[in-house]
Amino acid sequence: MSRFLTLIPYLAAQKILKTSVRPGHQIRTVPVTKSHGHICHEPVFSRLTIPNSAVSLRDGYAVIASESHSATEANPVHLKTFVPVHTGSPIPDGFDAVIMQEDVRLNDSDSIAILKPARPGQHIQKAGSEVGTGTMVLPAGHLISPEDIGAMIGYGITSVQVQKTVAGLIPTGDELKEPCTAPGPGEVIASNCEMLAASLETIGVESLIYPIVPDDPVKIQNAIEQAVRECSFVIISGGSSTGNRDHTENVLNEIGSLLYHGVAMRPGRTTLAGVVDEIPIFGVPGTPAGALAVLRELIIPWLSDTGYPVPIQNMVEVTLADTVPSELGTDDFILMVTGKVGDEYKAMMLPRGGGQMSAVKSNAVLHIARNSEGIKQGKECVIRLTQTFPHPDNIYLLSGLYDPILDILDQYLRKMQRKIFVRKGSYETTLLSIQNGNIHGGIIIRERTDGENWKKQDYSFLKEKAYAITIAEREYILATKGFPDFKSDKIFKYPDISQDSFLYHLMDAYFQKNQVNPQRILKQDHISNTEHEIIQKILEEEIDFGPCSSNLASEFELEGPVIGCESIDLIVREEDIESDQIQYMIHLLGSDEWNKEAWILPGYNLKRSGRVSLLQS
Amino acid sequence: MSRFLTLIPYLAAQKILKTSVRPGHQIRTVPVTKSHGHICHEPVFSRLTIPNSAVSLRDGYAVIASESHSATEANPVHLKTFVPVHTGSPIPDGFDAVIMQEDVRLNDSDSIAILKPARPGQHIQKAGSEVGTGTMVLPAGHLISPEDIGAMIGYGITSVQVQKTVAGLIPTGDELKEPCTAPGPGEVIASNCEMLAASLETIGVESLIYPIVPDDPVKIQNAIEQAVRECSFVIISGGSSTGNRDHTENVLNEIGSLLYHGVAMRPGRTTLAGVVDEIPIFGVPGTPAGALAVLRELIIPWLSDTGYPVPIQNMVEVTLADTVPSELGTDDFILMVTGKVGDEYKAMMLPRGGGQMSAVKSNAVLHIARNSEGIKQGKECVIRLTQTFPHPDNIYLLSGLYDPILDILDQYLRKMQRKIFVRKGSYETTLLSIQNGNIHGGIIIRERTDGENWKKQDYSFLKEKAYAITIAEREYILATKGFPDFKSDKIFKYPDISQDSFLYHLMDAYFQKNQVNPQRILKQDHISNTEHEIIQKILEEEIDFGPCSSNLASEFELEGPVIGCESIDLIVREEDIESDQIQYMIHLLGSDEWNKEAWILPGYNLKRSGRVSLLQS
Repeated sequence: MSRFLTLIPYLAAQKILKTSVRPGHQIRTVPVTKSHGHICHEPVFSRLTIPNSAVSLRDGYAVIASESHSATEANPVHLKTFVPVHTGSPIPDGFDAVIMQEDVRLNDSDSIAILKPARPGQHIQKAGSEVGTGTMVLPAGHLISPEDIGAMIGYGITSVQVQKTVAGLIPTGDELKEPCTAPGPGEVIASNCEMLAASLETIGVESLIYPIVPDDPVKIQNAIEQAVRECSFVIISGGSSTGNRDHTENVLNEIGSLLYHGVAMRPGRTTLAGVVDEIPIFGVPGTPAGALAVLRELIIPWLSDTGYPVPIQNMVEVTLADTVPSELGTDDFILMVTGKVGDEYKAMMLPRGGGQMSAVKSNAVLHIARNSEGIKQGKECVIRLTQTFPHPDNIYLLSGLYDPILDILDQYLRKMQRKIFVRKGSYETTLLSIQNGNIHGGIIIRERTDGENWKKQDYSFLKEKAYAITIAEREYILATKGFPDFKSDKIFKYPDISQDSFLYHLMDAYFQKNQVNPQRILKQDHISNTEHEIIQKILEEEIDFGPCSSNLASEFELEGPVIGCESIDLIVREEDIESDQIQYMIHLLGSDEWNKEAWILPGYNLKRSGRVSLLQS
Repeated sequence: MSRFLTLIPYLAAQKILKTSVRPGHQIRTVPVTKSHGHICHEPVFSRLTIPNSAVSLRDGYAVIASESHSATEANPVHLKTFVPVHTGSPIPDGFDAVIMQEDVRLNDSDSIAILKPARPGQHIQKAGSEVGTGTMVLPAGHLISPEDIGAMIGYGITSVQVQKTVAGLIPTGDELKEPCTAPGPGEVIASNCEMLAASLETIGVESLIYPIVPDDPVKIQNAIEQAVRECSFVIISGGSSTGNRDHTENVLNEIGSLLYHGVAMRPGRTTLAGVVDEIPIFGVPGTPAGALAVLRELIIPWLSDTGYPVPIQNMVEVTLADTVPSELGTDDFILMVTGKVGDEYKAMMLPRGGGQMSAVKSNAVLHIARNSEGIKQGKECVIRLTQTFPHPDNIYLLSGLYDPILDILDQYLRKMQRKIFVRKGSYETTLLSIQNGNIHGGIIIRERTDGENWKKQDYSFLKEKAYAITIAEREYILATKGFPDFKSDKIFKYPDISQDSFLYHLMDAYFQKNQVNPQRILKQDHISNTEHEIIQKILEEEIDFGPCSSNLASEFELEGPVIGCESIDLIVREEDIESDQIQYMIHLLGSDEWNKEAWILPGYNLKRSGRVSLLQS
């Protein structure tokens, strides 16, 4: 085994696959009702003549056309030879036209008055005019649609031979644990194959997921040999890099042939492909991002190239909200989120190392070809949509600090088929992103120590006027197991917190406001850096109280007086504040429904939600 | 019941639905692996911290960064404190950086040489950096994607509560027969509900199809009452017009309320909607075209309007190859086929009365709003794709005469992910369509009575030069149960065929060429108009032989000498002959593969297939 991979270009890998291997098929007979999305293996012929007799196309009366030709509104013709018919009724022998109910006056049970002449054949569908017995309804190779199912059933066809493409998915790796087990350090729950199976299902490919195979060449070989007997193609997850434990390449060389190992693409660099018994074998990285990229960018395009019906992909022209660097010589596939900001689609990049959460949050992929070193912020390019719901028109692109209320806001927006995407960013990054105008706005948390006034913050990165829209306020309390009775004889211990911090300021302001006697309180020896540490010490009774967010306190069933709050604000440039999207958000945040929705997260105050104020230092 | 429907505008119906009714939900717990395409009923939180310890991001060695800081290529640092790690391995306690395998020289088993310093944290992913226990992974209302399934499994989640939308489908009508039965005159096999179910399945809506209900108000009421208990919404197929047998409106007024009955749309005019026990009820016409139109244009948009995730629809700008008339005051939905002719998408209209075959053949819908009287040939408009495979870029639009070889050509093209659509048209219509340049070409059948020369035809409709590309030639034989031995004493009976006809000319030419003694043959009394009639008479031994296509003769196991042929030709304008699409077709028709493919249809000669000749009168 070579220690380093010799990478072939991405397009070369695509070409090798397209020209050297094809998926196998399984031929199955399925009931017509279960045939949707399948491909006909043989042509399908009508078993019936439709309609099987001349039928009426209207509710009305079957008549003899020649008896009606002098009829006018002024001089109706009165007919005694007629038969009432419904839409779809067979036309009785001897009759050759149908007059619609609306064009007839019923005189009595055995005579009708008609107001205009009927031409022969009028409103009658001839026998066999739709299809004859033996007419080809669907050719072999046809992808069966719902309309085809209706037609086949109507034409007397009850089952159909279809070609089925079945993927064999083999999870490999000593570190893998079955779902529903608790992974130890360095272990991970095997999820790649389930994800690949769900993804293949969207294009109608069935999957067989095999049991987890440890990093053992004999066991890998056995698994491949079983899968090639049962499947159209095989994907081995993990074991495709050149690590000591990566045996797939050797096994392929042993029992079949290797097409390539190593493609200059990112993620997915260590991918390999080969053939065993004419069945294509793919190796994909064990990382979910790498496995998905290889499926999306190599395996599915190969299926399409070899004739498998893959739906049309939705491409969107976007302006990049981020600079996306790329390595020369590598085809880069970057997960993105796109949304409509004003009249343009913009796209933000998801962190490459974000694991499965990046894939969960993204709705598009940007492909940067090997001859590019990347694309600068503000440039236009075309990206491929991978999720179409919610529609990009209804996605808010935000940057800023994370707060759990944003998850609740996102959830609330789903009811309106909208969503927010918040790219985590520092205070400074957020202000710069707002300034660039490529996102809807930024999330900033502003501290309010004395109930009303803001702590001063530096907004000088923002060159223009901007507004703050309050999403919610997070309340802070002086958390305790029981309310401290400062009038008792007891000496109360409180935490040592950095005097610069917001938490210290809150606590100090409370002591002063309530004129707590400094003799009765005692600072603890050890410094507490986080709210979690403060809570821990309260629970362990090392301290009697301490400041923390009421949200966190409630999780540990601690209570106490409110001592201040932080406002979680959406910051929007002046030129964007009147846009439909921002106005919609303001309206939403000010609504009673938002108030109700956010109540599920304790410790937030919503009385100022939806308020808009000019942002001032 | 009103005798005539009061039609409300299509947009009014859409608005009534959007504002008055919402689908119910069923809450179900499903395994994560089966959750794709479902909507979360509750938010999903991670049950694990990922990664659960600091892990290596590379294959290499865990080291202590501070020990490496003086390393250079010239003066490597030799370390004895290191641990080999793989991608994903936990970092042992006390180590704080990973050096990639590639950047290390192994001295011996207990020492490595490193060539550049490692910074603390290098190639290490911190515990919890992806998600923490309790992080919201998916909000309620989220549509679950394959990526989400991967993430949920990886985060220790095994099942998820989802909202399921279930449609109850009730077929009604005395004329309906269950699938797998033989319909009598005026009877049809119930196929609407199966088609609607397959169509709803494409957007993830489950269906319950109830047994066929006859046109009886009590039975219809019982069926509705059962369905509203079991489903999110109900569709009643048939029984929605004002015919005497159409009881749905009355039943709805009895046990619930009616929203509307009659919408100015075509097809689908007689549709109705109502509510029973807060469950929306839709009535759709019994005709498949009407039922599909109401599903596609009213019910699915309503699901989307009320928050159900319906995929983005593909719109295409096309030039109309046909004039599409429409009624003022009616929203018209016309089934179309679109394909790329040269650089532009063109679209042909499918016959409105074409039954289920029109739906099978179409790949798009044109919506003409109520304020329009239709759209002229050559005008541009936007249509909605309903099928995306084969891609419109790969669809040939043709007009002309039908021959079974065209079904085989269509089938052959499916292997290349292409197809042809041939709109049946007369000889004159076809020439006019070719002339207009809105289609790829026309199908014309040219007769060749004496083996080589064409029968004269009038091509004067075609103002420009055009070429004929031979698809195949259909052979004609003098069909007989046994080869006629004209030297025997027997008098042979032959059919009386119109002397103008191609069949007569073929037979007559054979008689002359073979110097058949007119004394030995006798014309039958009754005139035969069609090949089928001729065959029938041969089988019944009323005649001894007769001319017919060898294809048809072989179906009845008749044989005989070849007496002539017809050439099935694709006629293309001179300016189009060099286009990629036509050149591809010429190449294809001349290939051995086409020769092999077409052999399954007996009676065709392919030796001239793919030949191009100038079309001359």
